[in-house]
Parts: sequence; C-alpha cells; structure tokens
Amino acid sequence: MKRMAVLTSGADAPGMNAAIRAVVRSGIYNKIEMIGVKGGFEGILEERLESMDAASVGSIMQRGGTILQSSSCEKMFTEEGQKKAQSILHKYEIDSVVVIGGKEALQAAALLEKTGLACIGIPATIDNDVPGVTETIGFDTALNTVVDYMDRIRDTASSHEKTSIIEVMGKDTGNLALWAGLAGGAENILIPEKREDLHSIIEEIKQGGTREKRYRIIVVAEGMMSGAVLHEKLTKEAGIESRVTSLGHIQRGGAPTARDRIFASRLGAFAVDLLLEGKTGQLVTVQDRQLVNLSLEDTLEQRIEMDESVYQLPKKLSI
Amino acid sequence: MKRMAVLTSGADAPGMNAAIRAVVRSGIYNKIEMIGVKGGFEGILEERLESMDAASVGSIMQRGGTILQSSSCEKMFTEEGQKKAQSILHKYEIDSVVVIGGKEALQAAALLEKTGLACIGIPATIDNDVPGVTETIGFDTALNTVVDYMDRIRDTASSHEKTSIIEVMGKDTGNLALWAGLAGGAENILIPEKREDLHSIIEEIKQGGTREKRYRIIVVAEGMMSGAVLHEKLTKEAGIESRVTSLGHIQRGGAPTARDRIFASRLGAFAVDLLLEGKTGQLVTVQDRQLVNLSLEDTLEQRIEMDESVYQLPKKLSI
Amino acid sequence: MKRMAVLTSGADAPGMNAAIRAVVRSGIYNKIEMIGVKGGFEGILEERLESMDAASVGSIMQRGGTILQSSSCEKMFTEEGQKKAQSILHKYEIDSVVVIGGKEALQAAALLEKTGLACIGIPATIDNDVPGVTETIGFDTALNTVVDYMDRIRDTASSHEKTSIIEVMGKDTGNLALWAGLAGGAENILIPEKREDLHSIIEEIKQGGTREKRYRIIVVAEGMMSGAVLHEKLTKEAGIESRVTSLGHIQRGGAPTARDRIFASRLGAFAVDLLLEGKTGQLVTVQDRQLVNLSLEDTLEQRIEMDESVYQLPKKLSI
Amino acid sequence: MKRMAVLTSGADAPGMNAAIRAVVRSGIYNKIEMIGVKGGFEGILEERLESMDAASVGSIMQRGGTILQSSSCEKMFTEEGQKKAQSILHKYEIDSVVVIGGKEALQAAALLEKTGLACIGIPATIDNDVPGVTETIGFDTALNTVVDYMDRIRDTASSHEKTSIIEVMGKDTGNLALWAGLAGGAENILIPEKREDLHSIIEEIKQGGTREKRYRIIVVAEGMMSGAVLHEKLTKEAGIESRVTSLGHIQRGGAPTARDRIFASRLGAFAVDLLLEGKTGQLVTVQDRQLVNLSLEDTLEQRIEMDESVYQLPKKLSI
Repeated sequence: MKRMAVLTSGADAPGMNAAIRAVVRSGIYNKIEMIGVKGGFEGILEERLESMDAASVGSIMQRGGTILQSSSCEKMFTEEGQKKAQSILHKYEIDSVVVIGGKEALQAAALLEKTGLACIGIPATIDNDVPGVTETIGFDTALNTVVDYMDRIRDTASSHEKTSIIEVMGKDTGNLALWAGLAGGAENILIPEKREDLHSIIEEIKQGGTREKRYRIIVVAEGMMSGAVLHEKLTKEAGIESRVTSLGHIQRGGAPTARDRIFASRLGAFAVDLLLEGKTGQLVTVQDRQLVNLSLEDTLEQRIEMDESVYQLPKKLSI
Repeated sequence: MKRMAVLTSGADAPGMNAAIRAVVRSGIYNKIEMIGVKGGFEGILEERLESMDAASVGSIMQRGGTILQSSSCEKMFTEEGQKKAQSILHKYEIDSVVVIGGKEALQAAALLEKTGLACIGIPATIDNDVPGVTETIGFDTALNTVVDYMDRIRDTASSHEKTSIIEVMGKDTGNLALWAGLAGGAENILIPEKREDLHSIIEEIKQGGTREKRYRIIVVAEGMMSGAVLHEKLTKEAGIESRVTSLGHIQRGGAPTARDRIFASRLGAFAVDLLLEGKTGQLVTVQDRQLVNLSLEDTLEQRIEMDESVYQLPKKLSI
Repeated sequence: MKRMAVLTSGADAPGMNAAIRAVVRSGIYNKIEMIGVKGGFEGILEERLESMDAASVGSIMQRGGTILQSSSCEKMFTEEGQKKAQSILHKYEIDSVVVIGGKEALQAAALLEKTGLACIGIPATIDNDVPGVTETIGFDTALNTVVDYMDRIRDTASSHEKTSIIEVMGKDTGNLALWAGLAGGAENILIPEKREDLHSIIEEIKQGGTREKRYRIIVVAEGMMSGAVLHEKLTKEAGIESRVTSLGHIQRGGAPTARDRIFASRLGAFAVDLLLEGKTGQLVTVQDRQLVNLSLEDTLEQRIEMDESVYQLPKKLSI
Repeated sequence: MKRMAVLTSGADAPGMNAAIRAVVRSGIYNKIEMIGVKGGFEGILEERLESMDAASVGSIMQRGGTILQSSSCEKMFTEEGQKKAQSILHKYEIDSVVVIGGKEALQAAALLEKTGLACIGIPATIDNDVPGVTETIGFDTALNTVVDYMDRIRDTASSHEKTSIIEVMGKDTGNLALWAGLAGGAENILIPEKREDLHSIIEEIKQGGTREKRYRIIVVAEGMMSGAVLHEKLTKEAGIESRVTSLGHIQRGGAPTARDRIFASRLGAFAVDLLLEGKTGQLVTVQDRQLVNLSLEDTLEQRIEMDESVYQLPKKLSI
C-alpha cells in the first residue's frame, strides 16, 4: 500500500469530518501516505488532491459539513468517468480509496473498485437509506436536530392551539420522519412507505383525537408530499387550518452528536484496517456495537425494510 | 388594589412565561390576589379567568411559549369589545391588568386603560418593533435561534460552495434580520428599511466578493420579500442558483435566553410595583440596565429608527 | 390485569419521563388502570400512589429527571420491606409493576417479583452498567452532555496551551468515560477496567505526544480516581500543571436525546405488552433495533465486558 | 498608520474571536496592514507576530476561545517589559495596538500607551468586572452557559428533593452569580458584595421556604466562598445535606451568543475607527446600543456598583 485517498461525495452529513479524521489518522498511524480529494469524485477528475497529515484533521471532529467538500458524482456512472478517475489515481500512485457518502456515492465506489482500485465505502447520509445498514453517519444528528425543532414548534403551537405541519427530509424514504415523529411526540406521521394511510389519517385529524388536545403536530416526509401540499389538503378535505415548517438544509448542519462521532471514528479506522488486510469492495457498518463489513455490490441491491412496530407506536403514545 | 389580572396577547415570544411568573409572584409577595386570563383579550370576553398562586408559575421560566395561551385582539379595537371587557373585569372585581405582548397588544392595553382600568404593558415580541423600546422580550432568544441556524446552514453551504438564502421574521421591520445577519456573518442583508439597496446588492452578488469566497449567506427579512421571491430574482437577474430556508415559527420557540429571562423578570416585577404606586397607562422597559416607564399612548405613536452604522457594518466585516 | 403501577428508582436519568409516558399511555390504550408511585420503592411503603391518565404524562417526554421522583431502595433488600410492599400493592389491587432504573432498582424488582407480583424492569441509568444490556436509557444523553462540555473545555484549553482533566461519572465502570473520551477526542482516557495502564499513561503524558500539540484533554472515570487525585499525581510524578473539571450532577440533567426518547418509548410500550402476555421477571432491551426480553434474575448476574478495540481507538486517533 | 497589531490577553472569553475578526477585517477594509500577536503580551516579547488577511479570520466568529491564544501579562507591569515591548513593536513598524481582554489586560494597554504607542482596549471577560462598562464581551455567553447548567441541575434536584449548590466564577465580584441566579430561578444567591447576608441566608435555608418547595438551588460566587466550604457550613450550621457543582472552566467555553458576537463586532470595528481618527488610550463600550469611548486611565480607577434592586429581586420571585 503506497498512497490512500479519502473523499466525501453527495449531500454532506454531520460526522463526515469525524470519519475523515479517523481515516487520515489511522492511515498515518499505519505509515501510509494520505491524500485528501477536494470536492468528491469530481475532485479526482479535476486533480484536486492534497497531502494530509495528522494536523490537517485537527479540531474538525466537532464540526458539521465536510472539510473536503463534496459534489454529486454523475460522471462516475459513465465508463469514461471511471477510466479517467482510475488513470488519474494511477498517475498519483494512489492504490486505495475510502469513499464517505450515501447510496449513490457507495455505488460509484463499487464502480471505481471494478477498475482495479481497492475501495471501501463508509455510509454517511442523514436520510439513512443505505441498504443493509441499520444506521448511517449523520442520521443521529439529523434526528436530534429535527426533534429539537419539534420541541420549539410545540412551544408555540401549544400557545395558540394550532395544528403544525413539519416537513422532514429523507428522499424516497420516511426513515427520518418516522423516528423523529416518534421521538418528538408527533400526533401523526406521513411517510412514503405508508402512502395508503393518507386517507385514514386525514379522517382521524378531521375527527380530532381521543381526548381534548389543544394542538397537533404532523410530521410529513418530503418523499410522501411537501408540507405545502399537505397544508392545502387539510384545508380542503378536513377544513383545518395549519402552519407549515419546512426544515430544509438546516437538517444537514450542526455539530455531530457523540454517537455520530463515535460511529464515524470507528468506521473510519476500520476502513483503513480492511484495506491493510487487502480487503476491497466492502461497505463498513456496526451491528449491535460490533464492526462488520459487507460486499458493496451485493448489499446495495437489497431492499430497506420499515419497522412496522415503530410506525404503529406513536398511535398508542400520542393519545 | 383588590385583584390584578395578567394576560399574554398576540404572537407568543420566548420569555413570556418568565414575565407571567414575575407578575404573579410579585403580586402575591405584595398580598394581591392574582388572576390569570387564558387566551389573551379573547379570554376576558369568554371569562376564562383562573386564580393563580406561587406554585402555578413554578418551573415555567425556562419554557418557551405562554402557559396562559394567546390570541389576536381585534375585538379590543371596537368600542363594544372594550366595554364588554371592562364590565366583565368589573364583575370579577379586577381593577388592574398587566398586558404582555407586542405593539397591537399594547395598543389594546392603552384602549382598555381608557375605560378606567389600571393597565401596564410589557413589550414582548420577537419582532422588536415596539416604538420607544430598544429591546422587547423574546428578541434576544429569537436572535440566538436564527444565528444558530445560520451556523448550521453555513456548515452545509461551505461543503457545497452554495449561495443560501435565509428568510427571517420581523413583520414590517428588518430588526431581527439585521442583527442576526451581523451576528451570523451574513454576506448580504435585505431589509424593508433599505428597500432601495436591492438593485445594488444583486449587482454585488453578481460580481462575487472581493476575494474568492466559496459560499454566500443572504439574510432577507420577510417584510422585504419572501425567500422564494428572492431566489427567483437571483436566478433571473444574476444567473445564480441558491437554496432557500424559511425558518418560520421555529423562531418563536425554544427556552428563553438568560437575558430574556432577566429582562422579563425585571419588567414583570416593575409592572406590579407601578400599579401599587397608582401608575397606569405605562409601558415598562430597560434603558442601559435601568428600569424605565413611558406613557403607552405617547410612545406607541413614535417611529422606530434603524441604526445605520449597524446596517453598514457587515459590509466591512464579511469581506 | 387490574391495575398496573409504574415507578422510577435510584439515580435519575434523562429519558425516564419518556419511559413513564410510554408505560402509562400504553397501559391506558390497553384499558388498564394506571397508578404512578411517587418517590421510588419508598413511595410504595409510604403509599404515595396516584392515579394517572393520558394527560398526566403530557409534555414530559422532553424533560430531564423524573416526574415520579426517585429514591434509593435499600428497604427492598430486606424481607420485611418486600413483604410490606407486596401487601400494600395487594391492598390497592395492583397486580403488576414496571420498574424503571439502574442495576439496584432492577435487582429490587427481581426480589419484588418473588413475592408474586408481575414485574418488568426497564434499564435506565447514565452509567450504562446493567449486565446483558448494551445500552441503558439516559446513557446517550449523558454522553452528549459530557462531549458538549469537552468541546467547551477544548475552546479554552487550546487558548492557553493547558492540560485539562475531566472527571466523568460511571460508578465502578468506565463506560461513560470511555465513549465520551472517544467522541470528544480526548488524548488520554483512564478507566477502572484498565487500572494497570495508569503508569504508562502518566509516562506518555510526561513525554508529550508524537507531534507538537498545544493542549491535552484527559478523561478520568470517577471509578478510577477523582480528578483532584489525578491532578496531584500529574503535578508530582510528571511535573505537569493541569486544570480539573468535575462535571458532577449536570451529567444527569438535560432534555433527553432523540435516541433516549425513542429507546424509552419502545421499552415502555414493550414492558406493558409483556405484562399483558403474562410475562414477568423480565428485563427489556433493544438488540440491533429489535426489542428483546431477558430474565431479570439470570441477566443481572452476568459480567459486563469492555470493548478492547474501543479502548485502543483513541490512541490512534488523537495522534 | 502603517501597521496595526491585535492581541488577546488574560483569561479567554467567548466572543474574543469575533472581536479579532472585526479588528482585522476593519483594518484591511481601511487598507491597514494587520498583524496578529500570538499568546498575548508575552507574544510581543517573544516576537510571535503574524501577518493577517481577511481569510485568516474566516469562520472563527462562532468559535469559543481565541485563535491568537492568550497568557497573563505580568511583565507589562514592569518598566523593562514595557520598554522591550515598545522597542519590538517599533522594530516591526507597528504603531498601534488593539488589546482585547479583562481589567489587567486593559491596565497593561494603558501602560503600553504611555510608551508612545496608539492603544485601544476592548473589554472582554466573563467576569464582567471592568469599571465604567456595563457589560464585557463574553459575559452574556457565560451567563447562558451557567443558566443552562442550572436548568439541568434543577431536573435532577427536583427528582430527588435535594439542595444543590452551584459555584460560579467571577473573581472578586458576584456579577455572574447574581444575574445567573436571577435568570436560573435560584432560591438563594451568595455574592462577595453582600458578604454580610451570609448568616441570614443560612437561617432562611434552615427554616425552609414560604411554601413546601421540594428542592432548592443556591448559587455562590467563587469570590464569596467555594461551593465546598458552603456545603460544609450548611451541614454544620443548618444540618442540611447538599450537592455541590463547581462549573469551572466550562464557563469560559462555548460558541458565543448572538449578543456577544454583535457586541464584539461593533467594538472591534469601532476600535479601528478610533485609531484611524488619531484617538488613543481609550476603552470602547456600548451604552444603550450606542458606541462610546472612555479614557482607559480614568475609567479603570472607578468602582463597580452592584444593582441593589437586582439583588433583591430573586427574593420576591423564588417564593
């Protein structure tokens, strides 16, 4: 092993910096020359490569975002892009790459691995939508961010006896909305995995709850519908006025939680260990506190299951 | 003095609970019977009156919103409403009222005072738009809330080299936007008091800054234009893509800051002291740490001045 | 099932309120009459029992501490105490009890179960020292609290190039110190499970690090030694001045994290489900996101293992 | 004006970085060459001088501590030290200095000014003990930090019906303790300015409060006595058990509040403006939102007055 590169790709997630720190310092600890790629896979193609030492990743663990910056990675899905990336990395004598990012980033890592480079993927996205992985880096922080906002919105909703709609990120999945809704004590949660429940939920809202509750918080996943659309539906179909808050990109920021920092630190060091052992094409994760590696290619094909019992829980608890 | 009532009116603001606590406990300390009105001025008309003791306001200081709930107060602007309120308060032998709220609430308090009731107003609104008063209860908390979000948005904006627009509350004024923009290190601040600068600011954004900055945060007051409209303008007139975050009602929530709690505690106790001294029709505030009372009627007519030097400051500091 | 009681025992932990809410609302949802015991097991003996409805647990999920209050439970370790508790619960027609607390509380629950009552234990303690359970309610919040303080102490330590000692709770275990040290980027972590490393760690501190670091943060578990004692050792044996922060009871407070709220909500509802199914003498927990129940008696005998790889990790990452 | 230096001296305070940023960027905006001194006045003597540009102070406003680092400044109180500092600054063609720090730092600045250098002082200390100045940079952040801890301690105190002692910084003054006690709803506040009240406060604690309160929070300023000493007094003289939390250096850390950032930004820019106008030997501050400059020499001689009405307020409000 000569030189190892590390990059972050796709939407940023809190904890990416802790992962970068762990990869870089573990590499250096193992006497590997470490290279940071700026701006994601694009940065390979543009040869934005920087040598990194232990100090380059000092005091970054507690910061949101990614010091290596990021971008989307469409070009890696073309044969041309893959070849160019491979040849540039070859030119710089880089023989292994750690990719930190969401599902697309990990797919791109799998494709890059096919060109002969040793690649390990670290799942990091607030959407928590990577198959085979119960939790991604950034999810815990985003969850706490959303729940903190729900607490704030409840302050003001309860002062005015209002219905509040909170639109939460998550792309095609309702993962963030579901868990945030449970933790924030939402009265209703609308997620794309349960699209069929829309009608009955609106009926229930129309009826009011089981006891005289003064206010109601509804969490809706962006993959289900926008807060604005739900607002209109509630007005038209239930005759209920509501206020919409769309949390937007705030959900990506903030100092990572302890859990995300620990998670990122362990996965980053483990990725380097695997590369040193000659492993490649792997996804790293934690299962019940144990480090685990899975085949990138096989895992990304899998379906993500929603936990039905978690979905049912708020119905009992928000009575 | 027989019985004193306290109510919160209009949009809620963090620190209202600390003010309620101070009014109630100061009253009880002075052997006055204290009555809480639920739901603002509407609550008088609906006779939602509750006796309050020292324990009724225990552990509320640190909570956002208002335990007395609130509503708008249109009816108090009709003679009929004023008379009805007066007669109900008379029926319950309430001879003095402390009103906690924004400009409209204070205007309503001035009108109620005309009916012969002793009234003191405590300015509380995150908009900080009460004439004659340098700061209202809730402003400091909202300011910190907005700045905290700006820090989070910067995390993610700097990871993607993006332009971010943050829409901030404030009704007709740019107070919250201006001070938050300064504290959050915004590159540009658009406020209704400086509507004429729009063109030159868009020109400046088009040119880029003085050095190669990777991202730009623009704060826009809702009274100037919505974030969505500014987004469209930037796309069309400057060819610049941006992301919009509209903070919405989150800005009203959250545990009040130390400053808002202190402010509210001092004003609440002072309001009771004034009523005990036979003062009425007054607005209470703090000027350079000293408690001050001003005539409600005279003060609310005044114009609010914007501090030009504060508006100019970010231009120097965000270079 | 006629009446079900719920109580919190031992040191309080953030998330206890979320667990109480889940138990009470799940019970009511299942048409069970719910009784809250005030002041822990002592509260049974003193007959401090209160009927609870859905509203009694409204808006408590986000609050630290326990609305049911708590106490230690020595009397439950005497036969007399157990008998008295059983007979009082019998008198009030309470046939099942949910106990929320740490190791001692769960042992007391196991003893109470022997008297013929249906008992389920929910592990809640910031110390995370319950055998058979990878995580207890409150641990995640305390972890974030400690790490937040470490971030603050680093601010000031790095401004003065100082060595800082942070003393962390955890009774006989180093669990909280270990994970907080990893997440907070501590240079050294001293825990009772690795008492033998003390000498070599002091040697290392004496030598300074591998590169010129300006400051050093040392986390010490209270079960290893107090911060004051370590301070003295460093002065005498290494000639190094340091500042000590003992976080104390702050570590128990604060709004619970999303994770602790979710965890508590799931365990609380699950405890009620088990009682409804006729299960008793069980401890509830989550293993890789799945709800699991274990025998109270068998589990509490087990030893807790420390994860050696986690202990080694900071040595690589704080270079 | 050729070259302007900026330094931070004494204990660090949140907001110092925002002041550094404002000084440096204002200087550059005005075409002045800016020099950062590392490590306070010591850094002058050790010639640790660095050229600074707009980017050197990027993304520092939200960080606690001081990027320029700090130290105490005893040597500046000797004639030799002053001469040496003057001659080194002369060698580097630095003709003006902005000093950011507490009372001692400002006294040192006054002495340096006597050697013929243009000096402006910016008051920054969490102790808020600078004469003539109602508020110093860092005070608002420290206040919020202490109050946040008080909220946490109340969580756990109220769960166990305990008496809690919180020891707060402030050197010889009780400023931080007093305002934090008011904002945090402390039942008792002990400060050096009111040393004579000790006996009556202990009597009052012995009696218990006016109504059955379950717990009590006592804030004690370090200048009055340590928390440990008070604990012992309460045990011996009142027979009351208590728990002590000494917040220590955590009080210096944390992201500065919006208010401290604004305050620091305005003072920093104003300091540069004054130097450009030829003013020297001045202290800058804000009085009721207006920028003001005062003579360093005259002001530092003044006494600080405690606001008696603020001291009396918690007695009414914590009933």
